[in-house]
Amino acid sequence: MIIHMNSSIIRFVLGNVLKTEAALLLLPCLVALIYREQVGIWYLPVAAACFLLGCLMTIKKPANHVFYLKEGCITTALSWIFLSFFGCLPFYLTKEIPSLTDALFETISGFTTTGASILNDVEALSHCSLFWRSFTHWIGGMGVLVFLLAIVPLSGGSNINLMRAESPGPSVGKLVPKVRYTARFLYLIYLGLTIAEMVLLLFGRMPLFDAICTSVGTAGTGGFGIKNSSIAGYSPYIQWIVTIFMILFGINFNAYYLILFGQIKKALKMEEVRYYLLIIAASVAFIFFNILNLCANAFEALTQSAFQVASIITTTGFSTVDFNMWNESCKIVLVLLMFIGACAGSTGGGIKVSRFVILFKTVRKEFMSYIHPKSIKKIQMDEKPIEHEVVRTVNVYFITFFVLFVLSVFLISFDDTDLITGFTAVAATINNIGPGLEMVGPSANFAFFSPFAKYVLMFDMLAGRLELFPLLLLFHKSIWKDLFAYKKSVRSFKKLNS
Amino acid sequence: MIIHMNSSIIRFVLGNVLKTEAALLLLPCLVALIYREQVGIWYLPVAAACFLLGCLMTIKKPANHVFYLKEGCITTALSWIFLSFFGCLPFYLTKEIPSLTDALFETISGFTTTGASILNDVEALSHCSLFWRSFTHWIGGMGVLVFLLAIVPLSGGSNINLMRAESPGPSVGKLVPKVRYTARFLYLIYLGLTIAEMVLLLFGRMPLFDAICTSVGTAGTGGFGIKNSSIAGYSPYIQWIVTIFMILFGINFNAYYLILFGQIKKALKMEEVRYYLLIIAASVAFIFFNILNLCANAFEALTQSAFQVASIITTTGFSTVDFNMWNESCKIVLVLLMFIGACAGSTGGGIKVSRFVILFKTVRKEFMSYIHPKSIKKIQMDEKPIEHEVVRTVNVYFITFFVLFVLSVFLISFDDTDLITGFTAVAATINNIGPGLEMVGPSANFAFFSPFAKYVLMFDMLAGRLELFPLLLLFHKSIWKDLFAYKKSVRSFKKLNS
Repeated sequence: MIIHMNSSIIRFVLGNVLKTEAALLLLPCLVALIYREQVGIWYLPVAAACFLLGCLMTIKKPANHVFYLKEGCITTALSWIFLSFFGCLPFYLTKEIPSLTDALFETISGFTTTGASILNDVEALSHCSLFWRSFTHWIGGMGVLVFLLAIVPLSGGSNINLMRAESPGPSVGKLVPKVRYTARFLYLIYLGLTIAEMVLLLFGRMPLFDAICTSVGTAGTGGFGIKNSSIAGYSPYIQWIVTIFMILFGINFNAYYLILFGQIKKALKMEEVRYYLLIIAASVAFIFFNILNLCANAFEALTQSAFQVASIITTTGFSTVDFNMWNESCKIVLVLLMFIGACAGSTGGGIKVSRFVILFKTVRKEFMSYIHPKSIKKIQMDEKPIEHEVVRTVNVYFITFFVLFVLSVFLISFDDTDLITGFTAVAATINNIGPGLEMVGPSANFAFFSPFAKYVLMFDMLAGRLELFPLLLLFHKSIWKDLFAYKKSVRSFKKLNS
Repeated sequence: MIIHMNSSIIRFVLGNVLKTEAALLLLPCLVALIYREQVGIWYLPVAAACFLLGCLMTIKKPANHVFYLKEGCITTALSWIFLSFFGCLPFYLTKEIPSLTDALFETISGFTTTGASILNDVEALSHCSLFWRSFTHWIGGMGVLVFLLAIVPLSGGSNINLMRAESPGPSVGKLVPKVRYTARFLYLIYLGLTIAEMVLLLFGRMPLFDAICTSVGTAGTGGFGIKNSSIAGYSPYIQWIVTIFMILFGINFNAYYLILFGQIKKALKMEEVRYYLLIIAASVAFIFFNILNLCANAFEALTQSAFQVASIITTTGFSTVDFNMWNESCKIVLVLLMFIGACAGSTGGGIKVSRFVILFKTVRKEFMSYIHPKSIKKIQMDEKPIEHEVVRTVNVYFITFFVLFVLSVFLISFDDTDLITGFTAVAATINNIGPGLEMVGPSANFAFFSPFAKYVLMFDMLAGRLELFPLLLLFHKSIWKDLFAYKKSVRSFKKLNS
């Protein structure tokens, strides 16, 4: 028996996503009120449209709440597309971003916490738009569906499939038995850390508006700055606070959960977190010695190398220096960090440290099988064996990632930019970082790309944030056939019963 | 029980390899005689040294002929290192390549059929050295151990492990039940095709010496030219003959075996060969349309695109045009072809088409498991299911490949060349192609690299040709401990018995 897709639950969740977005769009209206900005008025009709459409979609309750991985993936992919489309309208309507393609690029870049911008002059934006732009990072960082799970009671026990499709990493565990409480815990930790950063930034005499935008941008590991010089204009104290919080938001949130419940030892023993911190330390040290002669003193070199390493590995994308000017070895280290990314279960993007750890362990196992063919053990992580299922999925993830990566670089190349620009533009978007090298370096932006290239990069940002499969599934014809078949089968079922 | 390594059989095989090299070194002496070149005298003492050392190593017959995969890998790795070291001595002694590092680079590049050169002026070499340089491609193409298996009777049924370690591709099948006959068949097909090319080149009025060097270079998919302009100076007829034979030598030799024995239908159905030809056709078409406006006419565009595509995908590395001048999309296609490489079981390098086919099938299977979780089938190739073992090894191969690749690019970057030069220099050596882009493009060479970078690239050439594992195993401490432990255990065993 083929199980058809439950399209009514997909519609229902999408409606709730739109209602949530309507509520969130009121926040920039508030900012506009405070700063008495007239353009802020445009956020209202968009919020109203989202609310109405959301209500229409949720009037009819879904027939059943069955939620398989397939439904989870499709719901997630469509949610993010809806979210981005409606989220970009205010930029377009206020005429602050006159092209719809550009507005969509900026918004997808925001929600996916990429931080790649098409704006030449960020400081020309109104406060309400600047806030909305940064705030999309915060929404996208932990995920809108996870937010929904935390506040909307969805009955049915298989909501984990929704969370699994949206959350980053090779395998998603529930912190507590109920998905709803897991989602709430995650958002509480997220909110707590964001407020902590904001307060510390205020201590550094950062203006309140800057502190809010910077901390929500850091929390989502997004990277939209509200100044043309990103974070470079702020004091070293502020730069260090941002550095530390970027690293903190790149850590697997399970660690914070363990710490909150007193299991500090267990948190410190998490292999992924250890490797993550080790990679950061090694990269900072390497770059520090390489840029020492470019800086006024050792402290400046340390500040710069730590900031840039933290910004790239956590895929935030803030910058305090144009690393395009660094030597080739430093650039290669940064490109590597782009691909490694942060921990699974954090707000960061990239391939994730845990996937690399699993890969390396797989390779080591293969080598051991050459040397001692008779003593092969299952791969372990955090002292638990890793299921073959997970190892296989990780392998497939890598392959799909590289196929998509190569295909994107090829498509971008029709713009005839140099290979490094093309390569790092894709790397910076698919890994949700923001800046790349050469023409998309930290002091440049993505405005010059053709609309076609921009759509390719938008796709990459979404695919990267949703970890490939949910978005790619949308391209399989059987999914569409299935959605249609379900409706048909429900209809014929009703006919039979009437 | 831990099985110690059989180091006496390793010594024995290595001795035979050296004796074979001694015999092969007499060929350039013959060339020197014909052209009355005095420098040719230096090939004699090297041949003598190889012969003497070879005899010393083979006086004592090995205690037993047990040959596991581990022994196969170590023997293969050491054979190629010995072969390259002694093979480079004539270049150094004749002072035609004054630096020992450069001479070793050129020789490893020859044996591994890479074709990357450090020579600024190839035409300054003597005929005997030009011949030896091209002939190393022919030896390396099919493999020296396969040659040995064809001529030296090694008793013991596990010689397949030796062949497995040297032959390219994810799994090595025996054409006929006996390894020895399989090896002979392979060499006969190899020789036959080489002679066929030579005859056809002579028909195109190519001088005999050029025809010999070009056909052995094509056969091994090597790519050392004997002119500074590689193949560009020859007629379109000759360019097309070389194009066709490059493609032929990139096909899985099993196909020829099947054709020879009348199973033409089965040969035409080989999936890998079909994909290989499909990739070539698509790439030629794409590049043809992109370079049409750069060429005098459509025929020239077709000749150039077909030649370059065939040269790169088969990892030969001959050139008739500087593709550095082509647009970015064409360059990306070529870089992709560099990684894809030829068929398994051919003389070509790269990752191999069959590995990519297996990978894509793995990904498709994973997607299907999302859509129809209950109907998962085993992956098939040529209508036979692929074992999980093979799929896993392919995955591990990819990972190891990329780790080595990235590490090499990082190490090369200390030379502070631009990223594209570093990236393609590693791609061109690890995939055994020859030319890359920018500073290592078809009209340039590898001379400018630092000795350190050259050793990294030499390692990559060997690792690429031997498909990673044999060479990397040499770096595992337990292998050395094991070699030592075996001798000790034999000694104590003898003591016990005396």
